[in-house]
Amino acid sequence: MSNSRATALAYWRAAQARDGDAFDALLTDDVVYHLPQTGERIRGREKYVQFNREYPGQWSVAVGADDQAATWTTFTVNGEEQPALTFFDLDPAGRIAQVTDFWPEPYEAPPGREHLVER
Amino acid sequence: MSNSRATALAYWRAAQARDGDAFDALLTDDVVYHLPQTGERIRGREKYVQFNREYPGQWSVAVGADDQAATWTTFTVNGEEQPALTFFDLDPAGRIAQVTDFWPEPYEAPPGREHLVER
Repeated sequence: MSNSRATALAYWRAAQARDGDAFDALLTDDVVYHLPQTGERIRGREKYVQFNREYPGQWSVAVGADDQAATWTTFTVNGEEQPALTFFDLDPAGRIAQVTDFWPEPYEAPPGREHLVER
Repeated sequence: MSNSRATALAYWRAAQARDGDAFDALLTDDVVYHLPQTGERIRGREKYVQFNREYPGQWSVAVGADDQAATWTTFTVNGEEQPALTFFDLDPAGRIAQVTDFWPEPYEAPPGREHLVER
């Protein structure tokens, strides 16, 4: 596992455990929290920790497969840019067995591919 | 770089190059393509390659930072499950310098945190 992956998993362990010291220790002083879908950014560890502390509701978090690879790509489609978030599951031989794509705007499936998909 | 990460990057290089042979060689025969936001799945290399070949419009794709770690987590909030997709940028010392969260349903920022965010 890469160091960055290990750090990402430690982040979620600390969040789930409400271990503020462990969480703080993972962040730079001027960490930026970014929510592309709302355009919001939160700057600095202090505000970010406060944001998490004040987050409404009861929540828990579970991480998916430990060895999943992911990419954040930018698609340019007919001149318009949009992000795509893709997760890859590999078989033991290293081939891609599952591709999961998130396009962070929901949409109804366009017609014309019913012959290829199931829902 | 992990092998799974290298495979993910090879996938995008092949897609962008329209290199069908390289693309095919990365996939298992029974690869599954999954779009959680529409509930669609496409099963098998043949249908998946066809789906990509028939994808409408002019498109190109660019991958983000090579060393970015990502997680796909499931949040349970007030009893309801929702996915969250998080990308981590680390500084040279290995601390988290940026956290980018996608919640794959768009929403208006809820009130009550204007004191913490900028837009």
